[in-house]
Amino acid sequence: MSGLIRLRGFIQAMTRLADADTSERAWLTEGADLLRGLVAQDDWLPDSMAEDGPTYRQYLLHCDPAERFCVVSFVWGPGQRTPIHNHTVWGLVGMLRGEEVSTEMVPDPAGGPMRPGRVDRLRPGEVVPVSADTYDIHIVENAFSDRASISIHCYGGNIGAIPRSVFDPATGAARPFISGYHNSAVPNLWDRSRELAA
Amino acid sequence: MSGLIRLRGFIQAMTRLADADTSERAWLTEGADLLRGLVAQDDWLPDSMAEDGPTYRQYLLHCDPAERFCVVSFVWGPGQRTPIHNHTVWGLVGMLRGEEVSTEMVPDPAGGPMRPGRVDRLRPGEVVPVSADTYDIHIVENAFSDRASISIHCYGGNIGAIPRSVFDPATGAARPFISGYHNSAVPNLWDRSRELAA
Ligand SMILES: [Fe+3]
Ligand SMILES: [Fe+3]
Ligand SMILES: [Mg+2]
Repeated sequence: MSGLIRLRGFIQAMTRLADADTSERAWLTEGADLLRGLVAQDDWLPDSMAEDGPTYRQYLLHCDPAERFCVVSFVWGPGQRTPIHNHTVWGLVGMLRGEEVSTEMVPDPAGGPMRPGRVDRLRPGEVVPVSADTYDIHIVENAFSDRASISIHCYGGNIGAIPRSVFDPATGAARPFISGYHNSAVPNLWDRSRELAA
Repeated sequence: MSGLIRLRGFIQAMTRLADADTSERAWLTEGADLLRGLVAQDDWLPDSMAEDGPTYRQYLLHCDPAERFCVVSFVWGPGQRTPIHNHTVWGLVGMLRGEEVSTEMVPDPAGGPMRPGRVDRLRPGEVVPVSADTYDIHIVENAFSDRASISIHCYGGNIGAIPRSVFDPATGAARPFISGYHNSAVPNLWDRSRELAA
């Protein structure tokens, strides 16, 4: 099966969930099931959405036109990591290639250093949720220092455009953060002429 | 205003029309009003979606995830034209840059040569509909032999994936046709980080 067919089917199924006014709880179960199906095979991500760079990359694969959800390819080069950050919306992380470690970070009410909380190590095919009900502040890093790792993320909004925060590990102080995306073009999932001619 | 903001707003408004279960008649009036707004300024089309080639180009700008409508940039190089073709779904053509001539082609029931019918010459900012109620079979050509012309088309489906026909001008004989698209990536309309930071 062509990879784009897989990604297109996933996005159409996610759109149907959005059209059904799915609750956050349902996104984190039904959406997780869909994402688990997507990352069960690593044969569909376009190469241009899998390239690492001098820092970790966030490539938008699809944004719902009403900005109800988005799908993003996160690429960690060897040893790369995010700053400590929050999301403010539900999220789903599905491991596609390599492994990553997500560490919850807990602010100290007294303004001292942030403390690590729950730690998840993700292996290919695994899906974990992020939300205010689980944890919203974390740091994510490539589990490997000698190769890239890639995970596919879904969020309950246009994550690249949501005003959120990064945090100083020494004090927990928040700084405004809008991540944007690294790509100015997203995959064209809609040219079915070759499938239809086959 | 950044061009991508204009295109994004157009696509969001078209999506709201689709969500309202708009009739074909309403698409051809309300959708036409939206498209007239989009082509009123020629400051928003990404250069990569405006390049001519050895034959006319069809660059997908957006496809609705449920394939209820799409938006395509058609680029005619100097003197280029389409074959005689049909659409099978409603369409809207908005002239962005240069001029084009659309000529209705009428089959001869006896299998003789097709005859030209209605002729439309489009100038920048103009929008015309295509549908079974107006005419569905036509040929489109660049009005100019010395420069490219570009029009923005909307259709009631994923036009690049719809099985339709091209016609032999001498006999009216139909041959199956699925146009596809020339681009493997579409513009990323969703990175609002620069707007939000401004
Ligand atoms: Fe995160
Ligand atoms: Fe046409
Ligand atoms: Mg919708």
